[in-house]
Amino acid sequence: MDALKAKIRAIADYPKPGIIFRDVTTLLGDARAFRAAVDAMIAPHAGAKIDKIAGIEARGFILGGAIAHQLSIGFVPIRKKGKLPFDTLAQTYELEYGTDEVEMHTDAISPGERVLIIDDLVATGGTAEAAIKLLRRAGAKVEGASFVIDLPELGGAERIRAMDVPVTALVAFEGH
Amino acid sequence: MDALKAKIRAIADYPKPGIIFRDVTTLLGDARAFRAAVDAMIAPHAGAKIDKIAGIEARGFILGGAIAHQLSIGFVPIRKKGKLPFDTLAQTYELEYGTDEVEMHTDAISPGERVLIIDDLVATGGTAEAAIKLLRRAGAKVEGASFVIDLPELGGAERIRAMDVPVTALVAFEGH
Repeated sequence: MDALKAKIRAIADYPKPGIIFRDVTTLLGDARAFRAAVDAMIAPHAGAKIDKIAGIEARGFILGGAIAHQLSIGFVPIRKKGKLPFDTLAQTYELEYGTDEVEMHTDAISPGERVLIIDDLVATGGTAEAAIKLLRRAGAKVEGASFVIDLPELGGAERIRAMDVPVTALVAFEGH
Repeated sequence: MDALKAKIRAIADYPKPGIIFRDVTTLLGDARAFRAAVDAMIAPHAGAKIDKIAGIEARGFILGGAIAHQLSIGFVPIRKKGKLPFDTLAQTYELEYGTDEVEMHTDAISPGERVLIIDDLVATGGTAEAAIKLLRRAGAKVEGASFVIDLPELGGAERIRAMDVPVTALVAFEGH
């Protein structure tokens, strides 16, 4: 995955001093890297039956849209509070300071559907954990969560695995 | 396109009284409708060489990600102000009350690249017009703009065509 890793831009001191932001837009802008990422994010689920992709706003929409198309299945958006127009389920999660909330339409998932969660990056795993809770409340079986980037020092992948959800991450960066 | 039209949910009085919101998430959640939309959005460009998809935040990311994948080309996000981590070009546009701003990374497009703009819906066309200006400032040739939904009474598709950009929209709804 070194070829993919080289396509991810590092931006120093963003969004604040001391943080290195991992910018996946350079990977998405590269036709071959984008396809390679999509293929690798679903490879562990080859042969499994997945019914829906749940993409986390906003970069998870780009990758999740591509993956839903590749698998010829439907796409479910998991959005920040107040962005979805129909009745929603909401789930709060902790931030470093305070809390945030994600939502999903109440009818986005039929009970028993097998869902793969997609986002560009897993850091603390707070959003992914909230997404898993939302999907399970709707009766989904969460088959996995796939990311391009893992920041292992922040423990998100471990946190998701502790919820019995297999995690795929293509590249890892130490430090954050 | 009646089959696609039937997959779009109408939500009365959202986001405010008197407005019927056209909710594309029900179409995206349906595997066959999602694929059919992707195919129809690119059909007018069959045989043309497109180098990049520019997807407009946020629902344009879902469709644009799928279309970039289908065409095996790169994806460029056009985002609301303050969301992109690297150096950006910014473009202001008019709202009913006040103005808003979209941004694109300065290095997202190489001069001469042929770009197709993707979003779920064209209303007044303000965001799409700003996206066209951004892309042209970066040296792109804008080959077209494709939407699932057109609200013709709001004149957006006409406004885009007046900029010499071909418009594709799969379904139209009168009233808004």
